[in-house]
Amino acid sequence: MGLNKPLLFALSDTKPGPKNLITDVAGVTVGHKTIVTDRLRTGVTVINPCPDNIFREKMPAATHVINGFDKSTGLIQINELGTIETPLVLTNTLSVGTASTALVKRMLAENPEIGLSTGSVNPIIMECNDSSINHIRDLGVTEDDVNDAFAAATTDFAEGGVGGGTGMRCYELKGGIGSASRQVEIDGKTFTMGALVMSNFGLGIGITRTGSFSGNGSGEVTLAFSTANRVSHFPDHELSTIQAITDDKIDRYFRITVDIVNEAILSSLAHAQTTPDHDSKPMLCLKDALLQLDNDEEALQLRSDLGL
Amino acid sequence: MGLNKPLLFALSDTKPGPKNLITDVAGVTVGHKTIVTDRLRTGVTVINPCPDNIFREKMPAATHVINGFDKSTGLIQINELGTIETPLVLTNTLSVGTASTALVKRMLAENPEIGLSTGSVNPIIMECNDSSINHIRDLGVTEDDVNDAFAAATTDFAEGGVGGGTGMRCYELKGGIGSASRQVEIDGKTFTMGALVMSNFGLGIGITRTGSFSGNGSGEVTLAFSTANRVSHFPDHELSTIQAITDDKIDRYFRITVDIVNEAILSSLAHAQTTPDHDSKPMLCLKDALLQLDNDEEALQLRSDLGL
Amino acid sequence: MGLNKPLLFALSDTKPGPKNLITDVAGVTVGHKTIVTDRLRTGVTVINPCPDNIFREKMPAATHVINGFDKSTGLIQINELGTIETPLVLTNTLSVGTASTALVKRMLAENPEIGLSTGSVNPIIMECNDSSINHIRDLGVTEDDVNDAFAAATTDFAEGGVGGGTGMRCYELKGGIGSASRQVEIDGKTFTMGALVMSNFGLGIGITRTGSFSGNGSGEVTLAFSTANRVSHFPDHELSTIQAITDDKIDRYFRITVDIVNEAILSSLAHAQTTPDHDSKPMLCLKDALLQLDNDEEALQLRSDLGL
Amino acid sequence: MGLNKPLLFALSDTKPGPKNLITDVAGVTVGHKTIVTDRLRTGVTVINPCPDNIFREKMPAATHVINGFDKSTGLIQINELGTIETPLVLTNTLSVGTASTALVKRMLAENPEIGLSTGSVNPIIMECNDSSINHIRDLGVTEDDVNDAFAAATTDFAEGGVGGGTGMRCYELKGGIGSASRQVEIDGKTFTMGALVMSNFGLGIGITRTGSFSGNGSGEVTLAFSTANRVSHFPDHELSTIQAITDDKIDRYFRITVDIVNEAILSSLAHAQTTPDHDSKPMLCLKDALLQLDNDEEALQLRSDLGL
Repeated sequence: MGLNKPLLFALSDTKPGPKNLITDVAGVTVGHKTIVTDRLRTGVTVINPCPDNIFREKMPAATHVINGFDKSTGLIQINELGTIETPLVLTNTLSVGTASTALVKRMLAENPEIGLSTGSVNPIIMECNDSSINHIRDLGVTEDDVNDAFAAATTDFAEGGVGGGTGMRCYELKGGIGSASRQVEIDGKTFTMGALVMSNFGLGIGITRTGSFSGNGSGEVTLAFSTANRVSHFPDHELSTIQAITDDKIDRYFRITVDIVNEAILSSLAHAQTTPDHDSKPMLCLKDALLQLDNDEEALQLRSDLGL
Repeated sequence: MGLNKPLLFALSDTKPGPKNLITDVAGVTVGHKTIVTDRLRTGVTVINPCPDNIFREKMPAATHVINGFDKSTGLIQINELGTIETPLVLTNTLSVGTASTALVKRMLAENPEIGLSTGSVNPIIMECNDSSINHIRDLGVTEDDVNDAFAAATTDFAEGGVGGGTGMRCYELKGGIGSASRQVEIDGKTFTMGALVMSNFGLGIGITRTGSFSGNGSGEVTLAFSTANRVSHFPDHELSTIQAITDDKIDRYFRITVDIVNEAILSSLAHAQTTPDHDSKPMLCLKDALLQLDNDEEALQLRSDLGL
Repeated sequence: MGLNKPLLFALSDTKPGPKNLITDVAGVTVGHKTIVTDRLRTGVTVINPCPDNIFREKMPAATHVINGFDKSTGLIQINELGTIETPLVLTNTLSVGTASTALVKRMLAENPEIGLSTGSVNPIIMECNDSSINHIRDLGVTEDDVNDAFAAATTDFAEGGVGGGTGMRCYELKGGIGSASRQVEIDGKTFTMGALVMSNFGLGIGITRTGSFSGNGSGEVTLAFSTANRVSHFPDHELSTIQAITDDKIDRYFRITVDIVNEAILSSLAHAQTTPDHDSKPMLCLKDALLQLDNDEEALQLRSDLGL
Repeated sequence: MGLNKPLLFALSDTKPGPKNLITDVAGVTVGHKTIVTDRLRTGVTVINPCPDNIFREKMPAATHVINGFDKSTGLIQINELGTIETPLVLTNTLSVGTASTALVKRMLAENPEIGLSTGSVNPIIMECNDSSINHIRDLGVTEDDVNDAFAAATTDFAEGGVGGGTGMRCYELKGGIGSASRQVEIDGKTFTMGALVMSNFGLGIGITRTGSFSGNGSGEVTLAFSTANRVSHFPDHELSTIQAITDDKIDRYFRITVDIVNEAILSSLAHAQTTPDHDSKPMLCLKDALLQLDNDEEALQLRSDLGL
């Protein structure tokens, strides 16, 4: 469940979907495998964009690299073709190869034509570095873990320090997975917009003052996909038709995108728990950090706003 | 050994290095692991840019994606930082994940600080699809194969259908690995330029008429690195100095680049052998294709030029 | 009129439109203003993509910069929005500013809302350097010349050393404006593809061997637009529908694009006339260059093929 | 003179230069021509990067387009070559052509070799739309105005609603020109970093909460240049040497860049005056807007901080 009071700092006046999660978008499911041992605090999160075959009926997609200190894979082909043809897997930076192999095997099993009558498949793995909490050199994520995350995919997924977000850190606080959604009317029809973040970034100047600093050793990679149009791998016709928001009307949807991404970050912080870091020192979650500021009005207000 | 008669179609008048291979560039070694079984014709080629530690002393690098139907990994960070910090691994498209994991393990072993006192490492895996010759769905490349390719790295490497080029096809002929080099005088010092290609592309309009067609399902990804400047991971100073060719003088080196890439492609064809394809039909090598044109003057001339 | 024998080196088997010019695309007109005086050999070519109001009903468009030694203007916004909202003007590199002002005035006159109820307009001026033939420092192009080119716009435009191509040089020969077209059946409907080039490039390795060399001081900028879909500036609805060729079928149209661009370059050469250069020496046209090779078989064949 | 109290919201702990202006960078001068008539509120600002010949000794430069609804010219070549070879001119969006022609004439006069022994010149004109205050359809900027701005170039330039910033609007307030600088020690030497903005953007969520929204009809284009290395147009040698900050140390300078750009925006607001808009209604400056909030603590604090 996303935040109950989602409209902090909102640029738009839209309402969240029933769960205030990316899974309010019809067909989307999210699964986690959380790995916690003596040495490991890491995991895998998968975003499955549809219940049917994404390889045969692809989805329009785009990526934007804000800061490219990043090892995500699959973006080159998305930039060329403008589609995704696999689910998305999120994990720690040194486990991208393992996750890629696991996803390839999964796609081969579902699509016996790949490598025979049709060429190849473009696995999408996105990553963050969780080495301040996790012993990342152990390469603790296995192919089975990726499969477990797929098996767990549901519309009611947890947020905070779970799945790929288990070892994440954000604004010097415990980060993780967060999500949010909005319902919008477009030309009389209801559409749903959703966001999911794996929050793992820098040194912000305060939570109530948005904005962060993007440094040399930090990667911010974004990927957007749409479930509203499908792109067939084996099309019947040469021409296809795509329906899209006109440029002239698109600002509203940019605003909503900012809202749900901001809120997903906040939700990842609100759902996270204080966790021992690499050196067994506590990495505070937002709630515990706010509790330490017990006479601070702004902190009290934020706890009240976020229900912490 | 590259081509003996390298100056076909040359745009420049420079001379090859002693081996006419990329390994004429001091410090560079290349290793292959060729995998041929009943079902597999695939492999791994590694380019090791230096005998010392590339992670601690990185090299300036750049990539250019001509056509992005491609699953290479590591390019995002090269585009951001302009350096490589690992050797390059070339393999088939579905084995990128396995190769990535193998390369990460190798880098971790050589650099105990990764994931502890310094963040992460950016493995570079480049790929082509060899599914017309190789049963690519078998995922026949193992981590050991990558290690074997590193162990085999040398300055005297083979060309043609070996290593990552084992299953490659080019201009409807058997493709593979090819290489070439040139020695140039710059401001009174001798420098060496080298190229290595894994040739696996389309339907050209003839070999003596250069030029090919870049289609939707084809990826052409290029990466260049320079051994002439090193970029320290743990620099002593804030300022560093880089020496580079001035823009005003750079055309000559663009011409040489075209020459060595063209010649490396030709060398990959000239060194390849006829190979059974996926359906056990022969995929002709260039020599055998030219032999079938036995009364054709142009074919005779090309055989003579290439020493076939 | 484009080339009569257009199918040299063809990658596709399609037929040209009635004129074998870009104006075979319904609605497109092209106009030239050719400026020849003692000191000037320059001019302006305009491509008017439709007879109606392009600002209010824009067209999908994209650009690709092959080599960015170039001063074309308007590309930033095309890259952002994916549309053109003005005709295209081609002129010499130092006259981009003048052409831009002339085009802005024309757009303001046709669209009284610009700068009042709607923001601005994005003029597109593309350029080449004709300084080897033209005294380019004289800034010989005036706003009136741009208006004259618009007034002359027609479906039956000349090729060779006319308009913006008056001072152009290509493959060390006299270059200029060239064009070609093809008619294609897509899902049972006939569409027309057209190309127009202002040829002004380098040192090729021969005309029958395609391919050129792109150097530091050379710019190759391309722009494509489609008349098949219009994008309204004042849309009634939030959603709009675009029909496009599916990725899976697009290779054929890439091939045709290569064909018409190659042929347009050849047509620019075939239509050009020998011209005195900057130093009053003759800059040979293709026909005169071939006549000098009077015993050369290949030259004879090319003259026959091109009807020279 | 930039802000006296510049360290609001600072990410770094550096000190401003003597003037807290971009002209604290040695050699840089800035000139304005402010145009105010019954119908016009517009102008021209020039940034002259050096007192000597920028065409013959170019400066390393880069651009980044955050949102490309923009008509700036000259960026294509900067992206290709990484240098600027003219001063920068800032004006309103419909006057880019006029400014381009004026700048070309100026460069031709200073460099008699352009168009004769060397090719062309790449004028850089950056723009914003001032049509909410200025009757932009009048094309009120002349070539003489550009020359006047160059003639006025000095190290002691005004900020606020002057020059190219005369008609600008920012955060629904009167915007304009703002600037800031910082002095930094790098490897024992003192360097100066400077920023100049022409502020003309959107609907922010409040000034003390940084961050803005980038919409479809808004362009944010940035350009950075360095005076620390020069790139010769007629180099003596093939190799040139460039000194740069190492990646590993660069975060500090990113932080300072954020500081000076933020502060330059704030300075543009602090120096602006309330101005009648297009419809003769007052467009409030920051000070007057704050005065209207006279019981608001945050407003009082900001007035005190900014000396308003």
